[in-house]
Order: sequence, then C-alpha cells, then structure tokens
Amino acid sequence: MKIQAVKGTRDFYPEDMRLRNWIVDAWRRVSLRNGFEEYDAPIFEYLDLFAIKSGPEIAGQLFSFTDRGGRQLAIRPEITPSLARMVNAKINSLPRPIKWFSVPRLCRAENPQKGRLREFFQWNIDIIGSDDVLADAECIFVCVDFLREVGLTPQDVQVRIGSRPLTLAALRSAGVPAEATDAALPILDKRPKVSDEEFRGLATEGGLSEEQVRAVCRFQDCRSMEEVRSALGGADDSEDQIGALNRLRDCLKTMGVGEYCTLDMRIVRGLAYYTGIVYEVFDAGGALRAIAGGGRYDNLLEVLGGPKVGACGFGMGDVVLGILLREKGKVRPGILAQGLDFYVIDDEGCPLETVMQVVGALRSKGASADFSYKRQPTGKQLKEANRRGAKRAVIVRPGNTVAVKDLVTGEQQDCRIEDILAGPR
Amino acid sequence: MKIQAVKGTRDFYPEDMRLRNWIVDAWRRVSLRNGFEEYDAPIFEYLDLFAIKSGPEIAGQLFSFTDRGGRQLAIRPEITPSLARMVNAKINSLPRPIKWFSVPRLCRAENPQKGRLREFFQWNIDIIGSDDVLADAECIFVCVDFLREVGLTPQDVQVRIGSRPLTLAALRSAGVPAEATDAALPILDKRPKVSDEEFRGLATEGGLSEEQVRAVCRFQDCRSMEEVRSALGGADDSEDQIGALNRLRDCLKTMGVGEYCTLDMRIVRGLAYYTGIVYEVFDAGGALRAIAGGGRYDNLLEVLGGPKVGACGFGMGDVVLGILLREKGKVRPGILAQGLDFYVIDDEGCPLETVMQVVGALRSKGASADFSYKRQPTGKQLKEANRRGAKRAVIVRPGNTVAVKDLVTGEQQDCRIEDILAGPR
Repeated sequence: MKIQAVKGTRDFYPEDMRLRNWIVDAWRRVSLRNGFEEYDAPIFEYLDLFAIKSGPEIAGQLFSFTDRGGRQLAIRPEITPSLARMVNAKINSLPRPIKWFSVPRLCRAENPQKGRLREFFQWNIDIIGSDDVLADAECIFVCVDFLREVGLTPQDVQVRIGSRPLTLAALRSAGVPAEATDAALPILDKRPKVSDEEFRGLATEGGLSEEQVRAVCRFQDCRSMEEVRSALGGADDSEDQIGALNRLRDCLKTMGVGEYCTLDMRIVRGLAYYTGIVYEVFDAGGALRAIAGGGRYDNLLEVLGGPKVGACGFGMGDVVLGILLREKGKVRPGILAQGLDFYVIDDEGCPLETVMQVVGALRSKGASADFSYKRQPTGKQLKEANRRGAKRAVIVRPGNTVAVKDLVTGEQQDCRIEDILAGPR
Repeated sequence: MKIQAVKGTRDFYPEDMRLRNWIVDAWRRVSLRNGFEEYDAPIFEYLDLFAIKSGPEIAGQLFSFTDRGGRQLAIRPEITPSLARMVNAKINSLPRPIKWFSVPRLCRAENPQKGRLREFFQWNIDIIGSDDVLADAECIFVCVDFLREVGLTPQDVQVRIGSRPLTLAALRSAGVPAEATDAALPILDKRPKVSDEEFRGLATEGGLSEEQVRAVCRFQDCRSMEEVRSALGGADDSEDQIGALNRLRDCLKTMGVGEYCTLDMRIVRGLAYYTGIVYEVFDAGGALRAIAGGGRYDNLLEVLGGPKVGACGFGMGDVVLGILLREKGKVRPGILAQGLDFYVIDDEGCPLETVMQVVGALRSKGASADFSYKRQPTGKQLKEANRRGAKRAVIVRPGNTVAVKDLVTGEQQDCRIEDILAGPR
C-alpha cells in the first residue's frame, strides 16, 4: 500500500537537505558571532501556553491533540511562548541581557500557499532584559548580517521599520477611541497587501470613519521623521518614540548596515503583543511575503506569569527565504552538490580486504571516504567516484602500492599503502 | 499564569543545547565521512504509514490527531517508515546503494522513565539497495566510528550481534511451529532484561514448552559460531547464515573495529520487521538500556507499496547515550562552555559609537564579538568578558587607539583602530 506525504509538508531528499543545512548553518554561524546562545524547547506544549499568548482563537490554527492523561497539547506554531516560559522559570539566575537564538521546526494548520506551508523552520533571535533601543538595533543588525552572509544586497532586500506606539498615537490623534485601536492594528497591517479599495472596505467594517482612514494613511505615508513629527503634532509620547527611531537609525549606520534599513510607518505587524519598534524584511521587488518580521514585546513574560521585562526579537522562516535565494541565483551549485575526500578503488587482482582496510583507516583519521560494494572494472569505479563528487581516487593495487588520482586536475601519484593507512594528508 | 513544560519533554537551555549539538554534530560528521547523505521527512505523517509498518496497536503509542480535513495524522515515533515512503517514491531514479542518514526529532506517547522520554533525537543510518553483508558491516562500522569519536572504548561499549534467521531456525529446530515463531521473538528479546523465572513464565504463556525453552536457550547461550553450528545441526539455511555472520566479523576486523563487536545469539530485536543480522549496542556495565539497535529489514519497502529491495540500518537515541557519556566523563567542560573571539570594551571617555563600530566590523568579518549595553567601569566589563568566555578583550580608547588583551595569558598589545576595523587577525 502506497502512502503519500501530507500536503503542506516537505520531504527533504539529500539535495533539499543540503540547501536547508546551508541556510540553517548560516543562521547558526551568524547568531553565534553576534554573541547569541542557542536554546530549544519541546515540539509540543500545553495548548494553554499558546492560547494565553494569542487568545483562544489560536486553537483553530494549530495541530492540537490529547494525551493518554487527557491533557490538551499542541505542536508549537511559534517558539516565543516556550522561550518566555523557559526564561520565566529561571529569571533570577540568568544574567541579562539574555541573548538567545533558536532554529525551531514549527507547524501551523493552514491551507498551503506559495511561501506558506504547514511545516517549516524559523530562525528566532531574541534579547530579553533590556529596554534599550540598542537591543532592537542589535536584532536588526543580526538579521542583516545573515542577509549579507548569503549574498543578498540592499538592492535585493530591505528591513522596513515602523513603530507600534507611533501607530497607536496616530490612531488616537485621528480620533479613534483607545478601546478600538487594538482592533484597528490588524487592519492597518493588511494595507500594503490589499488594494486601496479593499483597504477602505476593511477599515469601514472595522469601525473607522473615512476621515480617520485618511488621517492614519497620511501618517503611514510619511517619508521622514520630520513628516511624522508634524503628522502627529506631539501626541502622547510621540517625541520619545521619534527619538528612539532616530537613535535606532544612527546605531544601524554606525554598525555598518544603514543601507539595508528604511523607516516605514506602514509596518504595523498583525499580532497584538508588540509594544515598540516593529519591522519586516521584504524583497525589493515586493513580489513575495515578508521574509522576516519582529519587534519589541515588553509584556509577554508578565502575561505568562513572570516579571515585566523588556524583550525584543524577530523570526525568519525558511520557505520565503528559500524562494528568494533561488530567484536571486544565490544558491550556487556547489551548495547542492555532494562531496567526498576519497573514493577507494580496487585495481584488477587486488583483494577487497585491502580496499576496506584503506577505507576504514581514512575514515578513522577523519577523512570522508567511500567505495563500491560491487567488484567492477577500474573505469566504472572512477566514474562512480566522479558522480559522488570525490576530490581524489585512491586506486589500490596488488603488491601494497596505491595510486592517488586528483579527480579535478587528473594528476596521478604513486605511493606506498602504509602512507595511506597512516592517514590522509 | 504560569505553565510548565509537558512531562517527558526537555527544555534545552544553552548549556543543554551545547551538549545536544556536540552529539548531533558528531553524528553528522561521522555520517558524512562514511559516505552517507542527510535526508529528513515531515514530523507528522498519515497515521496509516505507521500502522502499516507496525500494526494498528502502534496507534496507542503515538501522538495522533485529526486535521481540519478530517485526515488522521500522527507525530512520527520513528523515521524508517518515512524513509521507505521517500525511497519508494523515487526508487527508479536513485542510484543504489542508497546510503542515507538523518537525525530526526521523534515523539512517543510513553510513560517517561530513566533513558526513555516522550520526545528525543535519534540518529538513523540506513543502506537501501544492497543484499551484501558488506552493507551490514558498514552500518556497524559507522556506529563504532561514532562511539570512538566521542571517546568510548571497547571497554565502555560493545556492539552485540545476533541473527534473526538463525533465531528462527533455532525455534523451528526446537519444534516450535512456523506460525508460532513470530510471536516467540518478542519473548526471546525480553530474556536479557528479566529474571530466569520471569522469562520461563513469559515463554510458557507464549505457548513454548519447557523443552523448547531449554533448546532455544542452549542456542542463545552459544559462545562461538562452532557451537551455533552444532546447536542447529544444519537446520534450514543455517549454514548460509553462519557464513554471513563469519564474513561480517571478518569485515569488521579488516576495517579496524573488531574489538568493539561480539557475536551474541541472545540479540533478537523485538520488532517483527527484521529479516537478517540484528544488533544492539550496550554499555559494558549493562546498567543502561540499549544505546543503539538495528539490523536488516529486506521486506519493508515492499510492505509500503514498493519493490522488494535489500535494506539495513540502525537507530541511536540521544537520551541513553547522553547518560553514558556523562557517567564515563566524556562530556568535558569545554563542550558545555560558551565562547567568543572578542569582547569589546569602552575605556573611560570613549564614545559608545566607537564600540559599536568595532563590534559591527569584527562580526562582519566573521569573528564572534559582543559588548555591554550598559556603560560600566573597564574592570566590570573585563569581568563580563571573562564570564562570556571571550578569548580577547578589545579596549577602545579615546583618540583612535585600542588595546587588545589576551584573556588567557593576560598579555596586552596596543594597536590602531584601523587595524581592528580592517578585520580580525
């Protein structure tokens, strides 16, 4: 009986796996060099953990199940609630700021579409225990450090940076009552994704007047912090928040990534839990969904039973990123190719035992080496060595001599078998 | 509201994660140098995939759930069914032998005990498309290559090798009817784990007579292939199977891992799907559960709708292995410690911007570097540099000079800031 993979999931054949590993290895390398430590949490948690953060509606968007003890569990759709749970459990012994990263496998019960699957991997960068805009700047720096690492330029991608408090100030100064602003945020978040007409429709449904919509759009379309300042007219704490955004921009320039970043008040983020600077990374063409998104979330630890502690971070999934890297030609063939240091071949009349002895010795010294299970002509084995991407062929001959052939240059050198058994150069 | 992790799962704080990464990195490194390619499959599959391989009883041992389309899905308790599914889907285009490895996260709905959790990681090594005992030998070699890599000696661990066909021959030659042998295997598998009395009880319940039990035990207790030969008296294809075991032993010796391997007819493996050589890895003390287990399974691909293709492999979990590595003192403190190439410090009067410029430049050149968000006295920052395991401190001073301090030797050298900004040595 033949069974398929579940739709919205991916099989990683070796070539797919090499691409995934190339991305994940770069995520890890960049995180570590930016001073972040890796953590991970279980793939399933109590359903309540996700419901407390995101509201009970979240249950419909995740894979939940009941264990034999009748406990309601769910596969994680994101790792931030687990992060908050883990930090809360050791809040008094962890030196701050806590700079942690993770590369969790996540699952969401969605309808698969381009760039959106039911199972994916997501790089998470978080800094907990700092209210300083330096922490926001560092997260964005790390994000850009990765984009640069995989060859994406400021012409390929941009980090678009907005502000939750400034957006709330704009809503309030447009006359939207405080209790209605939370509901307005997901509507504003949709604006860049829908037509003007659709947006006005959504806004009206959400209870915003035409005048309010115009005022908020005027704020969102500001091209400079000066325009933002005059659009808001000193409402609420907008001066402080404008100062924070200016400082953020200066930090990013100082650290050398200013070109990758744009202030953009249309960036809102849909989730309720953000409290400060927010950002999303988009391809310059604008054809794809966001590549990454994040911001400051100062209340989450408290909501999950811990203290009120400043926190910020972002997530970057592997699906949209993978599409962009392929489109931009950044996935070089070398990344997808298999390779070996040595392929060991028996010349006519040489016993298989010698091949196995040589293979065993090479591997034990840390070199990658392989051989054919079938006794075949030397030419056929050489062909297989090439197919496997071997750098060198070791041709074992009767009488304790071997030839080492460089499969790139074609050069061949004789040596004694003892030299090979003593370990690769 | 405070929520805990689900029992039987693990939170990986950075130190735990470094241990896990040390193990997983060694699994990967050893797999690649032995010529295996990495693959992965989704974390959930159709429940049927597992039920076809292991029988409908398996449903009680795994976490299953229904998606919005009413499909019965389950979190994978093992990856072999997914492997067989993936290989079957591309059986005609994959060059054989297929040598693949994976390090899947797996979940089982069990009661947590020492060495047995509800979520764990398992290294899987498989060779598909070869009937040759060379393939079995290579799997065992890879297993030992890893054990050696992490510092375990033949005095610490042994691969105990048995034979499913010889065990079946022993059952039949003891007079157990062919249709009853499958049910007898899980009972024999339990023998090393229970007292003699309990074992006889289980065997009697399973329909074996006292005489049959004695005969099978005589076979299982054989200390040499000569004893096995005389115990079986040429039953069925036992001569061929004895030949295969002898060849396996010779291969392992030739490849240099003979000392790690023992033939042991008490090794049976509980699962029904094995068809040839089987093995388990145990700590020499015998205090722990098996560290790894595997064998030949020539029918699985066919059962899952593919062709009949020879296959063999093993799995090694991270839980028992982790306990053993700690007990044997193989987890050196260096493995668990964090580290940084540079910690950048501002001496009195130096602007923070210079620190950030230096940090940004070092990271952009690929070095790991960090700094303090708080302006603190130099001594306090040096202390933090040490806590973070930094190799060197870069002390930035007013007037474009810096001092680089080696935090191991204490040596300090002055240099120009341009030299640092040009990238680390």
